[in-house]
Amino acid sequence: MMDSVLCWADKNRDQFLAGLKKWLSIPSISAQPDHRGDVAAAAEWLRDEARSIGMNAEVVPTAGHPVVLITTPEGLAPKGAPHILIYGHYDVQPPEPLELWESPPFVPTVRDGILYARGAVDDKGQVHCHLSALTAWKQINGGFPCRISMIIEGEEEVGSPNFMSVVNARKDFFKTAKTLIISDTSIYSRDVPTLTYGLRGLVGTEMVLHGANTDLHSGAYGGTVANSGHALCEMVARLHDPQGRVTVPGFYDDVIPLTEKERQMWKQLPYSDEQFAKDLGVTELFGEVGYTTLERKYGRPTLEINGITCGYQGPGNKTVLPNRASCKITCRLVPGQDAEKIMDRLQEYLRRIKPAGVTMEFTYRTKGSPSCLTPLESPAMEAAGEAMKLAFGKMPVFKREGGSIPVPAWFKESLNIDSVLIGFGLPDDRIHAPNEKFELCQYYAGIKACAALYALLAEKLK
Amino acid sequence: MMDSVLCWADKNRDQFLAGLKKWLSIPSISAQPDHRGDVAAAAEWLRDEARSIGMNAEVVPTAGHPVVLITTPEGLAPKGAPHILIYGHYDVQPPEPLELWESPPFVPTVRDGILYARGAVDDKGQVHCHLSALTAWKQINGGFPCRISMIIEGEEEVGSPNFMSVVNARKDFFKTAKTLIISDTSIYSRDVPTLTYGLRGLVGTEMVLHGANTDLHSGAYGGTVANSGHALCEMVARLHDPQGRVTVPGFYDDVIPLTEKERQMWKQLPYSDEQFAKDLGVTELFGEVGYTTLERKYGRPTLEINGITCGYQGPGNKTVLPNRASCKITCRLVPGQDAEKIMDRLQEYLRRIKPAGVTMEFTYRTKGSPSCLTPLESPAMEAAGEAMKLAFGKMPVFKREGGSIPVPAWFKESLNIDSVLIGFGLPDDRIHAPNEKFELCQYYAGIKACAALYALLAEKLK
Repeated sequence: MMDSVLCWADKNRDQFLAGLKKWLSIPSISAQPDHRGDVAAAAEWLRDEARSIGMNAEVVPTAGHPVVLITTPEGLAPKGAPHILIYGHYDVQPPEPLELWESPPFVPTVRDGILYARGAVDDKGQVHCHLSALTAWKQINGGFPCRISMIIEGEEEVGSPNFMSVVNARKDFFKTAKTLIISDTSIYSRDVPTLTYGLRGLVGTEMVLHGANTDLHSGAYGGTVANSGHALCEMVARLHDPQGRVTVPGFYDDVIPLTEKERQMWKQLPYSDEQFAKDLGVTELFGEVGYTTLERKYGRPTLEINGITCGYQGPGNKTVLPNRASCKITCRLVPGQDAEKIMDRLQEYLRRIKPAGVTMEFTYRTKGSPSCLTPLESPAMEAAGEAMKLAFGKMPVFKREGGSIPVPAWFKESLNIDSVLIGFGLPDDRIHAPNEKFELCQYYAGIKACAALYALLAEKLK
Repeated sequence: MMDSVLCWADKNRDQFLAGLKKWLSIPSISAQPDHRGDVAAAAEWLRDEARSIGMNAEVVPTAGHPVVLITTPEGLAPKGAPHILIYGHYDVQPPEPLELWESPPFVPTVRDGILYARGAVDDKGQVHCHLSALTAWKQINGGFPCRISMIIEGEEEVGSPNFMSVVNARKDFFKTAKTLIISDTSIYSRDVPTLTYGLRGLVGTEMVLHGANTDLHSGAYGGTVANSGHALCEMVARLHDPQGRVTVPGFYDDVIPLTEKERQMWKQLPYSDEQFAKDLGVTELFGEVGYTTLERKYGRPTLEINGITCGYQGPGNKTVLPNRASCKITCRLVPGQDAEKIMDRLQEYLRRIKPAGVTMEFTYRTKGSPSCLTPLESPAMEAAGEAMKLAFGKMPVFKREGGSIPVPAWFKESLNIDSVLIGFGLPDDRIHAPNEKFELCQYYAGIKACAALYALLAEKLK
């Protein structure tokens, strides 16, 4: 049966592509209030497409943009088939700067086998892989191997502020899901199909130092009172040791160490420090000793200054002794680390190393987003691995990502559901940038991977 | 003779004050192009007043605002009398924020014996002390005890960009001057008349660090390449030791040490660290060990960060790994130090301590302004001391200032003329701020001090 489905999917590529192009032509830019109607239209388009293949589908309003919820009606999945949940988003990043696009961002255009449009790969194109796979199953089989639900939001690009309220309002429904499938990442490289099994978490704060009650004249006061800028630099300089390790006490205490298996897997990825440095325009790389670049990026926690503001920043010199200096700090977290605990330790350490003569405050701390790690040996991950092999011709490599997507952690936290990150994009797809693309061979392989995945999950999760 | 002059000056206070109020009502704001006509009018007012007491006076045009040059005609000074030069400025700072003024800045108003107006003390009021003193001498004596020249510029508040071109064009004339008198400072406190015999110099630069060729995503890249913000903080943290000493090699090599006499003099000034800290709103002071606060401020060189810019500075968090960080640095210099040499050493040191992974550039370095130090034992300084005693009833204290006024150093450099800084303002006169004031008792005492000074200089410099 699966073979017939994959075969039909292959034969009907043009039909799928035509549908995707229609969806991509709707400028569903969640960040721009002028496009509120377009965002709604993109949600309705998806609802109608889902209904056309017999799914239940509704546009669920939120305080912001709506969520599209698609579920499998009684009779379209075998009795007792596992419930699997697919997450994605139909909103897109703003397309600006427009002048850098070779074809207009909302006029989807194929050149040399590559589809160009805003949202082509992030994330309409990848959601559409699932929709196409479902279409093929419905066509050939009259129904689906699992009970499939899709929850596709319209605010991912603006931080998903209302997403979990929709999930939590239907907690009883969602908690029957056995796994969460997300197709919103890329494979490692063109020839290296990949599954992502871990993401780093994130937590941030802003530290502000105050010196005198006003900016002072550096002539009349220089040498007599603490300079907030000096104090800030002294503190920041004490956040890392010369070997690139974070010096906050206890920072690494709860880190689950990388396994030998992971380190070996990543060593086999085609990667070169020289090329990486060249691409970034630096003469040397820098980071925590004892780990390779990929290990540092995928599996080690970091503490980064994201911005510093102090004193006069205009042209030329101004002889001011700044009374205020601030810096934004974020930490990327890895499995084992608790965001709240790390932030407590960081703030405690900063309080301790604060130099004399200045006072300190934290103007905010973000709600931490935990890291996520899906067990490599889980049935869902095995199913995903086999699905990728069927679609891309070889077994995928298992990698983590350095970035943070909050949804997997939220589902883990709220419903104890693990996620499988099965993405089909390429690292150079220019997401969030002009000329975003989705290569058609990736799109078509993605459809096959999705179609295969449903059957494999039905088998492994039963 | 001098007694009669001082007596006449005392009796004609109202006439002087009326003149000053007229001058102060002209909004000669050099920084604001809309006030170009007012600046010119203030120059012409001064020229006309000088002519009315028989002086030669001209408005000398420059590339910016004009300079008023006032000289003593043949016959109005004794043959062979010393030539003394008075420097000042008739331009004023912008008055904003206007809503904080209790009476309008250009409607000079006396309340409780205090004159309020923009420019009241900085510097029209203090220039007017000299003009009034000359008026008194002319009235009683028909002429002046010295050959007096005044050079009063209209761009002091914008950095005096065109001043020295006027001086240099008349070098032969100016170089006959025996001393430069400047009344643009304040006395130490109400009961402590003061002469300023030293100013710190100034030199500055901006250091920019570059990391990768673009800002990077802190998730995708955090932990793999140098963060320009960390690098900058590490460098700045290495510019001082924990005892507040500048660590740039050779920074203190050429410093002329404070003499025991100076340290003793300053110890006798009414001063309290507790009050100073309280006024600034800090719980503790900070600076180079081994020196009192006043010694650090008057007589020790400093290195201060004036501003830092790096990465994201808007509201909330942005998970960027900043590829650019910059900071502005200025050094206050003391006698003995050469601005160019200090800047060379600073830049050399920064090049040496630059961490791996970033490149560095200096976007500019300012033309250094040297410090100045007038010998305490010079005849001009003695004359000024006696003049202050006659006007204020006790011998002045000799202090230095932490700030920098370039004119004395320029005259020293270009014409080898020492300066006497004889000012009559009070430290709380709110120069550059709303409700600038000149207390009338200071104004009248200033007129007497100037009148006495001319006679004393004629005697000591002959």
